[in-house]
Amino acid sequence: MDQTTNMTMLCDFYELTMANGYFLTGKKDTITYFDVFFRRVPDGGGFAIAAGLQQVVEYIQNLHFSEADIAFLRSKHVFDEAFLDYLRSFRFTGDIWAVPEGTPIFPHEPILTVRAPAIEAQFIETYILLALNHQSLIATKANRIVRAAEGRVVLEFGSRRAQGDSGAINGARAAYIGGCHGTACTISDQLYGVKAGGTMAHSWVQMFDSQYEAFKRYCEIYPTNATLLVDTYNTLKSGIPDAIRAFNEVLRPLGITKCGIRIDSGDMTYLTKKARKMLDEAGWPECKISVSNSLDEYIIQDILRQGACIDMFGVGERMITARSEPVFGGVYKLCAVEDGAGNITPKIKVSENVGKITNPHFKKLYRFYGRDTGKAIADYLCVHDEVVDDSRDLEIFDPDATWKRKTVYDFEAKPLLVPIFKGGELVYPLPALEEIRSYCAAQVDTLWDEVKRFDNPHKYYVDLSQRLWDIKSRMLSDAGKADRV
Amino acid sequence: MDQTTNMTMLCDFYELTMANGYFLTGKKDTITYFDVFFRRVPDGGGFAIAAGLQQVVEYIQNLHFSEADIAFLRSKHVFDEAFLDYLRSFRFTGDIWAVPEGTPIFPHEPILTVRAPAIEAQFIETYILLALNHQSLIATKANRIVRAAEGRVVLEFGSRRAQGDSGAINGARAAYIGGCHGTACTISDQLYGVKAGGTMAHSWVQMFDSQYEAFKRYCEIYPTNATLLVDTYNTLKSGIPDAIRAFNEVLRPLGITKCGIRIDSGDMTYLTKKARKMLDEAGWPECKISVSNSLDEYIIQDILRQGACIDMFGVGERMITARSEPVFGGVYKLCAVEDGAGNITPKIKVSENVGKITNPHFKKLYRFYGRDTGKAIADYLCVHDEVVDDSRDLEIFDPDATWKRKTVYDFEAKPLLVPIFKGGELVYPLPALEEIRSYCAAQVDTLWDEVKRFDNPHKYYVDLSQRLWDIKSRMLSDAGKADRV
Repeated sequence: MDQTTNMTMLCDFYELTMANGYFLTGKKDTITYFDVFFRRVPDGGGFAIAAGLQQVVEYIQNLHFSEADIAFLRSKHVFDEAFLDYLRSFRFTGDIWAVPEGTPIFPHEPILTVRAPAIEAQFIETYILLALNHQSLIATKANRIVRAAEGRVVLEFGSRRAQGDSGAINGARAAYIGGCHGTACTISDQLYGVKAGGTMAHSWVQMFDSQYEAFKRYCEIYPTNATLLVDTYNTLKSGIPDAIRAFNEVLRPLGITKCGIRIDSGDMTYLTKKARKMLDEAGWPECKISVSNSLDEYIIQDILRQGACIDMFGVGERMITARSEPVFGGVYKLCAVEDGAGNITPKIKVSENVGKITNPHFKKLYRFYGRDTGKAIADYLCVHDEVVDDSRDLEIFDPDATWKRKTVYDFEAKPLLVPIFKGGELVYPLPALEEIRSYCAAQVDTLWDEVKRFDNPHKYYVDLSQRLWDIKSRMLSDAGKADRV
Repeated sequence: MDQTTNMTMLCDFYELTMANGYFLTGKKDTITYFDVFFRRVPDGGGFAIAAGLQQVVEYIQNLHFSEADIAFLRSKHVFDEAFLDYLRSFRFTGDIWAVPEGTPIFPHEPILTVRAPAIEAQFIETYILLALNHQSLIATKANRIVRAAEGRVVLEFGSRRAQGDSGAINGARAAYIGGCHGTACTISDQLYGVKAGGTMAHSWVQMFDSQYEAFKRYCEIYPTNATLLVDTYNTLKSGIPDAIRAFNEVLRPLGITKCGIRIDSGDMTYLTKKARKMLDEAGWPECKISVSNSLDEYIIQDILRQGACIDMFGVGERMITARSEPVFGGVYKLCAVEDGAGNITPKIKVSENVGKITNPHFKKLYRFYGRDTGKAIADYLCVHDEVVDDSRDLEIFDPDATWKRKTVYDFEAKPLLVPIFKGGELVYPLPALEEIRSYCAAQVDTLWDEVKRFDNPHKYYVDLSQRLWDIKSRMLSDAGKADRV
C-alpha cells in the first residue's frame, strides 16, 4: 500500500451533493467549525486511546480530485459544471487541531476540531471519521489486552481475520500504539516500523516426515530464533519432547540457551504449567512459552490468575477486529459558524436523547494533572478564548448534575488539542511511531487504576467551564421554546 | 485505492520464515494442496456467501517482490541471501480452484483449493484468507439484512465506521454482492460500479437560517433527487411540515411527484407511520420514506412486523463491520502432498476438538439440486478423480453419524469449484459485479426457507463420498494409534 494513495473519493456521496449545494447557494466559503467526538467507550471501559491522526494528515495532504475523478462525478449527472470545474483546484485551506495519537480520550470531548470553509470542512468528514474510528478502536482494544498481560509480551497476529487490507496494516499500527510489542504483519513493519516476527505454522510440521525432523531443521536454519509450534499432533506427548530433543541436539552444542515454544490449541493453563515444568527439567529454563488461541483481555486475565506459565501472547481476531465491540462511534458535528467579520456563532444539535446533545462552540480542551501525584484529575472544556490559570484553585462541576462540585488545586492545566494544520499547511511534526507508543504508555500511567478497570470503571470527569455551560444551557432553552434552533 | 497495488508484503512474517526454510531444505518445489474452508456460519446462520475472489485474483496476478521489499527483508538478518535472490523471480505458478463469488457456502467444504509448489502455496495463505474472510463476512451479513427487508431497498451507509479504507471500499462491494442496492461510498462506485448515492447531513440543515430554507434550496438544486433529512430539530412538528412545504413550493410546479424523506433518529415504527399519513394527506403518496439508525436484520424484522412504513433502509456500522459477529473464520489447511511421480498423499490435521479435524485429500465439491424443485439438496465432497453420475440414485450419509442415510434421486450434480488459475495463468473470466449479485440472489433462492432462518436454521448436508470417508477414517485411526500422523 502506497501511503501517498489519494483517498479523496473515499467519501460518502452526500459530502459531494452538499458540497455542490454549498457551491451553488453561496455558502461554500462560510467558515465553519466541526468537532470529532465519541459518546461511549467500547467494551464499557473507562477511556479510549486516540489513534489514526497520521492517516488523517496524509489524507489532507493528498486531497485533490483527478481528472478521472471529475469525469466520474460528471457521469452521475447531478453536479453543476462550474462545481466540477472548481473541484480541479479543490484543496484543504483550513485549520485542524487534534489530540496527539496515543492520548487517552473520554466521551463528549473534541479529539479533533476543524475550522475551514464549509465546503472543505464538510467534505473531509467521512475519511477523518473512518481513520480515527478505526485506529482508535484497535488501539483502545489493544491497550486493554496489553494491560491484562501485566508486562508480558503481546503480539498482534490477526491479519488473516482483519476487515480488509488496511484493517490489517493500520490495525497493526494502532495495536502497537496501544502497547503491543510487535505484529505478524510484515508490511506494517515495512511501512510503519511495527516490528514483525513469526516462525512456523502447522503446515511446516506436516511437510516433514516427522515432527522431530521439522523442528530440527528449523533450529538449524534459525538457531537464534527457534520458536517451535508444538501442538500439531499432541503437545505434551510428542510436541514438547520433540522440541526439547531438537533444542538439545542443535542449540545446546552452539551454546544457545534462548528459544521458544508456541501452543495454539488446548487448555492454556494446564498445558503451559506442564510445559514449563518439562522445559525446566530438561535444562531449558530460558525457553519462552507463547500461546495464541482466541485470546482477549478476559481470557488472559483468567489464565494468568490460574497460574499459567506464559511469556508471550499472540492475539489475533479478537484484537484486530475488536471483536467484542467492533465499532468506535466517533461523530463529526458542526459546532460553530463564523460571519464575515470573524464573529463566531455557536451551533448545537439538540436531540430527544440527552446523550446525543452536542457541546456547542469553538472550544479549548484542558487536562488537569495533580502536581503531587502526576495523575489526571479531570478534563475541562471551555470556550476557545478562555484561559485556565492553574496557579489558582478552580471549582469545577458535573455538567449534568451541577450541584456536584469539586475544587481542584495544586494542578497543572495542559491544553490537549494541538495545531495540526494552519491555513492548509501542516504545522505539526508527526512523531515517530515509537514515540507515540511511549507517550501512550506514559499517559495511561497518569490515569488512576479506578479509571482503568475493565468493567464498571470510575467515570472520569469531563467538565465544562461556567461560560461554556451557560452558553449551552441558553441554547438548549431557546431550542426548547422554539422546538428548533 | 489503485486496484493494481502490490500486496505481496501483506503476509504474516512466518510465511517468509517458512518460505526461506522450504528453500533451504529442498522442499520448495514439493507440490502441495491447501484448502480454504470455514467451520461455522456467523450469527448462527444456515449458510454464508462467498466473496473476495476478485481481490485474490488481483493479488495473485500482482504477486512479486520489489527490490525495496527484498532490501527490507535483508535488513531483518534472518533470510538466506540465495533465498532473497530467488524472491526476485518469485511468481505464482500453480493452480487455484474456487467457488464463484456469490455462492452460498457451508462449513467444512473447500471454497478455494490451491495446488502449487510448497513455497508458493504457503506464502499466499495470509492474503487469500484476509480477502475471502473479509468479503464473505460482509456479504453474508448483508444478505441477512437484505432478506429481513423483504424486497425493500437496502443501502450500505457505513464507511465512517468501517475498519480502514478497504473495510469501507471492499466492504461496500461485498454488501452489494450480498444484495444491497447501493452504497454511500463514492469510491466503491468509481472502482467497482456499486451505485453510490446520498443527499444531506444534519449540518446542511444547520447551515441555513431555517430548516425550511435548507429544504427549499436543496429541492431547487436537486429537484429529481430530493430526499430531505427531517429529524434535525423535531421530525413530526417541523421536519415533515417543512419538507412538505418545500415539495409543494418547488417540486409541485415542476410536476415532480417523486421525492423522499429520511429519518435518522427516534422510534422508527411510530415516526414512519405518522410520516406516511402526513405525506399522503398532503398529496405526496410517492414520497419515499428512508430510515437509517443503528439498523440490522433483527431491528428491521421487528419494525416491519409492527407496520412501519419504510421504503428504504440505510444500514451503517452493523453491516460494514458485521457488528454482531465481526470475524469470518476461514482457515487454510494442507490437505495433500504430491511426490515427484505425481502420486498424491492425503494429509490431515487431527485435533482434540473433533470440529477442528480437516477433510484430507485433493477433493471435488458437488452441489446436488432437485430436478423437480430446483432446490439445493446437499453438498457432496469426494476425491478429485471421483465422478458423480447424477442419472442414478445415490445414497449419501452424515459423515459424523453414518447411520443417518438418505437416497437422492432425480437430481443434478453441479461441480462448485471452478478453475481460476492453471499453471499460474488466469483461466477464469471474472464476472461483472452485477452478474455476481444476480447469481448470488438466484443461488440463495435455491435454498429452502428452513436453511435461511436467521436463528436455529436447518443444517444443510455437507456429506463425504464413501471413498473419501474411508480415507479420512483410516487416517484418523492411524493417527490415534501413533498419536501423531
